Amino acid sequence: MTATFVVLIDFLGTFAFAISGGLVAVRHRLDLFGVLVLSFAAATAGGIIRDVLLGLVPASVVDWRYLAVSVAAGLVTFWWHDVVERLRNPVQISDAIGLSLFAVLGAGKALASGLGPTGAVMLGILSGVGGGIVRDVLVATIPGVLQRELYAVAAFVGALVVVLGDALSLPPAPVAVGGAVACFVLRWLAIRRGWRLPQPRSREVP
Amino acid sequence: MTATFVVLIDFLGTFAFAISGGLVAVRHRLDLFGVLVLSFAAATAGGIIRDVLLGLVPASVVDWRYLAVSVAAGLVTFWWHDVVERLRNPVQISDAIGLSLFAVLGAGKALASGLGPTGAVMLGILSGVGGGIVRDVLVATIPGVLQRELYAVAAFVGALVVVLGDALSLPPAPVAVGGAVACFVLRWLAIRRGWRLPQPRSREVP
Amino acid sequence: MTATFVVLIDFLGTFAFAISGGLVAVRHRLDLFGVLVLSFAAATAGGIIRDVLLGLVPASVVDWRYLAVSVAAGLVTFWWHDVVERLRNPVQISDAIGLSLFAVLGAGKALASGLGPTGAVMLGILSGVGGGIVRDVLVATIPGVLQRELYAVAAFVGALVVVLGDALSLPPAPVAVGGAVACFVLRWLAIRRGWRLPQPRSREVP
Repeated sequence: MTATFVVLIDFLGTFAFAISGGLVAVRHRLDLFGVLVLSFAAATAGGIIRDVLLGLVPASVVDWRYLAVSVAAGLVTFWWHDVVERLRNPVQISDAIGLSLFAVLGAGKALASGLGPTGAVMLGILSGVGGGIVRDVLVATIPGVLQRELYAVAAFVGALVVVLGDALSLPPAPVAVGGAVACFVLRWLAIRRGWRLPQPRSREVP
Repeated sequence: MTATFVVLIDFLGTFAFAISGGLVAVRHRLDLFGVLVLSFAAATAGGIIRDVLLGLVPASVVDWRYLAVSVAAGLVTFWWHDVVERLRNPVQISDAIGLSLFAVLGAGKALASGLGPTGAVMLGILSGVGGGIVRDVLVATIPGVLQRELYAVAAFVGALVVVLGDALSLPPAPVAVGGAVACFVLRWLAIRRGWRLPQPRSREVP
Repeated sequence: MTATFVVLIDFLGTFAFAISGGLVAVRHRLDLFGVLVLSFAAATAGGIIRDVLLGLVPASVVDWRYLAVSVAAGLVTFWWHDVVERLRNPVQISDAIGLSLFAVLGAGKALASGLGPTGAVMLGILSGVGGGIVRDVLVATIPGVLQRELYAVAAFVGALVVVLGDALSLPPAPVAVGGAVACFVLRWLAIRRGWRLPQPRSREVP
């Protein structure tokens, strides 16, 4: 039952990330294939890069349900993007849920593959933010996660909780929930209050 | 003899894709190394990403002939790009041949590696369009395949024929030929008649 | 003692490349996370792609010291980027050292993994220039190495010396030093004298 629950949440996160990919594609007037590619890339690229770095065949290449969920989200965005844009709040909430879950699951998967704490935190962050980076690179823009309000930091906190829990031999399930909640709350506060990371002082693009 | 034929066609496709990479590099005024990199990337990145996802060492990294063919195409484009531009028709035909062959070979290789039908179709498409995506990302433009006339759909059809033939246990060689021909004809009609995928309604880049 | 020396030089190269990533991030006004990501990417992406292509788990994912060195360089750039910009000469020298070392080590690692001479030269070049390419793609610009003064050619010469030495069964250590020195000198002369690769004649971006 726990496993079913995780899978459900995993597909919810996939769907939310895929919606974000579809919206970016629509804004750049890509065609239907472009919308589906950006949906799939935003939802799965983080996990794919993580698995490739760990020497695994990525789950989203083997398991057709990730593609199905991404395509469903892509089609929804393609046809009803104006409706989706108006649902700003639910989209941001599911995106934050996706981020929290991917960061926590990614760190856990890296630990299970034998990686040390630093590598596990890195791959947790990458699982959370990698999809958004690939999505933005594909439309030739600077990835928002490198510029915007606290996003990667939330993923960092979620992954860190998992790695610390593992180092202290705490039971993994509640630790994962705690990490995900911490990530979600931080991300949510950052959106509400416009929290940002500092930027370097006083330089312009030449 | 069949194997020799496939290899010949494979190098023809590699050459055609490499020409497309070289032309993009010339248009963006890259230097000689840039032209060679874009030729090689356009010709091999799709297959390289496919092989990495399957956990294989990419053929084009191990077999020097892919590099040789790409470099030859790059040099031809570097010196005679005005001639190549005027040969629009033969270039488009070889590009369509490359697409057809790569989609069909890619799907077949994925099936041979034990992937299911969805994964095999995905990797078939990726083998066909991945090189063009990496080529365009390297010159900081939105990949044409996400915007233009039917291109990925043709690769999709080619890969789908291979996967259906496999599911029905049909003999692989004629199925591969059929898939490649279907992909080529669709792509060719799309160029001639300007067939495009639908775009989302009425949004602009903000 | 030789091993310690190589590790020291490796971290020097990592630091120098990470500085270049941090400077690009500062110029594009990324936030703190963006600066750290570009530092890490510039320093490690070449080696990561090489290792993934060879089927290995990348050293910089497993060994936390690469992250530590990159983060240190990123923080230095974030806080004192104006000082770093003024230290143009030392930065260019360490970058050239990093290039020389990564090209030579990359080619050697590829040979040790059983790759042939062409593949080893390719992966040597990729180890040297891959980080800079990923760095530039992440800020949506055309990679400088595809346009600028001799950079990849220097990496090519360094990797070639290693591969030739291996083919002639010469002792690896002096060959590696020779390759690195050749690469460094060529790169340095290219900076001083503005040597460039030829560009294609008379075309503009349409």
